Amino acid sequence: MVMKFDFSVRGMRDYYPEVYHRLSYIFSAWRRTALSYGFEEFDGPVIETLELYTVKSGEEIVSQLYNFTDKGGRELALRPELTPTLARMVAKIHNQVPKPMKWFSIPRCMRYEKPQKGRLREFYQFNVDVLGEKSEMADLEVISVAIDSLLLLGLGKNDFVVKINNRNFVSEYLAGTGIDEQRTQALYKIVDNARKVTEAATREKMNEIGLSEEQRNAVERYLAMNGPEDIEKVTENNSGRGSLLTLFSLVRTAGMQMYCEFDPTIVRGLDYYTGTVFEIFDRSEKMRAMCGGGRYNNLLKAFSGVEIPACGFGMGDVVLGEILAEKGMIPEYTKNVDYFLVRVTDRELEIMLRVARMLRSRGMAVEHVYNLMPVKKQMSRAAKISAKKVLIFGADEISNGMLVQKDMETGTETRMSIDLFV
Amino acid sequence: MVMKFDFSVRGMRDYYPEVYHRLSYIFSAWRRTALSYGFEEFDGPVIETLELYTVKSGEEIVSQLYNFTDKGGRELALRPELTPTLARMVAKIHNQVPKPMKWFSIPRCMRYEKPQKGRLREFYQFNVDVLGEKSEMADLEVISVAIDSLLLLGLGKNDFVVKINNRNFVSEYLAGTGIDEQRTQALYKIVDNARKVTEAATREKMNEIGLSEEQRNAVERYLAMNGPEDIEKVTENNSGRGSLLTLFSLVRTAGMQMYCEFDPTIVRGLDYYTGTVFEIFDRSEKMRAMCGGGRYNNLLKAFSGVEIPACGFGMGDVVLGEILAEKGMIPEYTKNVDYFLVRVTDRELEIMLRVARMLRSRGMAVEHVYNLMPVKKQMSRAAKISAKKVLIFGADEISNGMLVQKDMETGTETRMSIDLFV
Repeated sequence: MVMKFDFSVRGMRDYYPEVYHRLSYIFSAWRRTALSYGFEEFDGPVIETLELYTVKSGEEIVSQLYNFTDKGGRELALRPELTPTLARMVAKIHNQVPKPMKWFSIPRCMRYEKPQKGRLREFYQFNVDVLGEKSEMADLEVISVAIDSLLLLGLGKNDFVVKINNRNFVSEYLAGTGIDEQRTQALYKIVDNARKVTEAATREKMNEIGLSEEQRNAVERYLAMNGPEDIEKVTENNSGRGSLLTLFSLVRTAGMQMYCEFDPTIVRGLDYYTGTVFEIFDRSEKMRAMCGGGRYNNLLKAFSGVEIPACGFGMGDVVLGEILAEKGMIPEYTKNVDYFLVRVTDRELEIMLRVARMLRSRGMAVEHVYNLMPVKKQMSRAAKISAKKVLIFGADEISNGMLVQKDMETGTETRMSIDLFV
Repeated sequence: MVMKFDFSVRGMRDYYPEVYHRLSYIFSAWRRTALSYGFEEFDGPVIETLELYTVKSGEEIVSQLYNFTDKGGRELALRPELTPTLARMVAKIHNQVPKPMKWFSIPRCMRYEKPQKGRLREFYQFNVDVLGEKSEMADLEVISVAIDSLLLLGLGKNDFVVKINNRNFVSEYLAGTGIDEQRTQALYKIVDNARKVTEAATREKMNEIGLSEEQRNAVERYLAMNGPEDIEKVTENNSGRGSLLTLFSLVRTAGMQMYCEFDPTIVRGLDYYTGTVFEIFDRSEKMRAMCGGGRYNNLLKAFSGVEIPACGFGMGDVVLGEILAEKGMIPEYTKNVDYFLVRVTDRELEIMLRVARMLRSRGMAVEHVYNLMPVKKQMSRAAKISAKKVLIFGADEISNGMLVQKDMETGTETRMSIDLFV
């Protein structure tokens, strides 16, 4: 019986060794950077209660989730992001742990979305969060982790840009123009979209939701702001102004100004952001954001009952992986074989397996053929998988306590004492 | 608003940093061992079609799965094991890849089972498989990987035992006693259970399914076998006999006989096994098997249409983690901080952040407080998180191009040139 149909699930990913290699190359840069800043790794389950998501985001999120009822009648969902899990976990232990807490994770997440370029139904996301710290130094630190992880992957200031804004800054600015709350949500979408369309298109959208000319002009002045100098001109009553200025000053102090810019169109869709918000884009801006984050000072209170200011980001593997692949920045996959062991007859099998295990216990990658074949065929197998060295076990040498080592790069053959290997 | 209910899902796991540390300690031993044998890492999606599981295991498996219908009407399941995914993936590419293929993975799996000691609804499983090789050398190799990974975790021959059998050996032996096929399934369960109960209990079970005295005696002679010597006495018509003897001979050649024994009760529940089968137990045998595997020469044909002999194993993290924890063999979790940076005033913030990034780019873990506080408080923070070294940034030293390094183990303070750090 042969299965005639394709068993793959739409939008899901098969990580063949070459693909897995790309993934773990990205993961190790993420992990190394987070650890270098003293963040601790954690993870949660893939399955959470549906309520964990609807309680803060409302019922509309359900359409974007994989959700189901289990055999015990529980309403469950596959996690679409890690932040609600983080909030749930921190709520359980927050009073036993010194603050600030610095945690990171590389969770696998699932979303029921139309698969397209840069967006799959299954993805990984680098999550970095500082909990229990309200100062902009924490915002700076998470932004620095994001930047340094991209630098470690070989990207530079001409490849990406961190676009920064502040939710209070934009919301108070817009409120100041007298736009009613009803239209503010629609206006957020127009502001968010403004960096992708023409000024005329933005103006037309504002007309559509019925803004007055004065209001449109105010929004256009807002959208024209492009640096800390412009932020400074805004009224000091705006509570986001001081925070943004502090953050940009810290960005300069940290020597990161070449990677960061103020962008008034960054508002972030999720409701839980309260202060700093940022997204990281490919400089060409042909792609979706590769990273998004910010401050969410109220989310944890909903779970734990106490104020735990927090900030963090999520960086997906899909857009980033496409950017790195496009720029040829992912090292080619090669299987690593330090030693390939060749036996002339099966009488040498015992000593060969002993040497193999000894080398492996020293951290070496060692291979050999399973079934005896001519030495020439074994040698060509060794060459094919790019083994660095070959050890040849022949009866004569073995009886004298020797073996032959061939360096596959130089071709040099050396008789060596077997004692060096056992 | 505070959530009054517990959002955790029964049987799912929260991996707090101390827990994650245990997990990654186990993962890195698994990974290092598999790589040392030249296995390549891969993974598949968490979500598969339900059909992928029912097609080989029948509808009864559905009760043990998390399954659901997605919003597009697809019948899906969360993977309970990796082997069907492996078969599906290999079927797609088998004719482009040289054999044997040596693949491993550490998938997260989910089963809808009653949570209990050693068994959770969510677990990880080390999967190691050789595809496209039918000789017992491949069986030996996967068994060696399992053994060496346990040795690397600090377990020894007094801690675990690999119990080996052969599906053909047991099935042909039982068929030879004239027991009809209908009773063979029930008898497999009795055989599998025989190592956990008394001989009398086993005999009673055999009576219950209506075996004749002669048949019972034959099964009891089978159950009394306990080494290659006994296997040799079985009729040569038994096609599992030669394979078992070859494998045990290879086990001795590889110097692994102290970890392995023949156990006639090992039959493995899953239908797809065809030859060698094995399980690894804690020597005390108080726990479930920590590992199970064997040869499955027919499974891949169902997916790819061609013969691809295969063997492999799965080793879960739950039982193994409990054994290691019980024996105190998991290193204590400590956050690694190489340098803690202390500033006297915020005028030193800029140079301090520069030094921090430079040290981090060299792979060091570096921390500092976010908000300026007295040096004494910063020092006590450094001590609390067991930082190895502290660098103190004071205005006077900095103006002379110097800083003070304190070794936290010895207490020694040294004035050093800042040039060493930037």
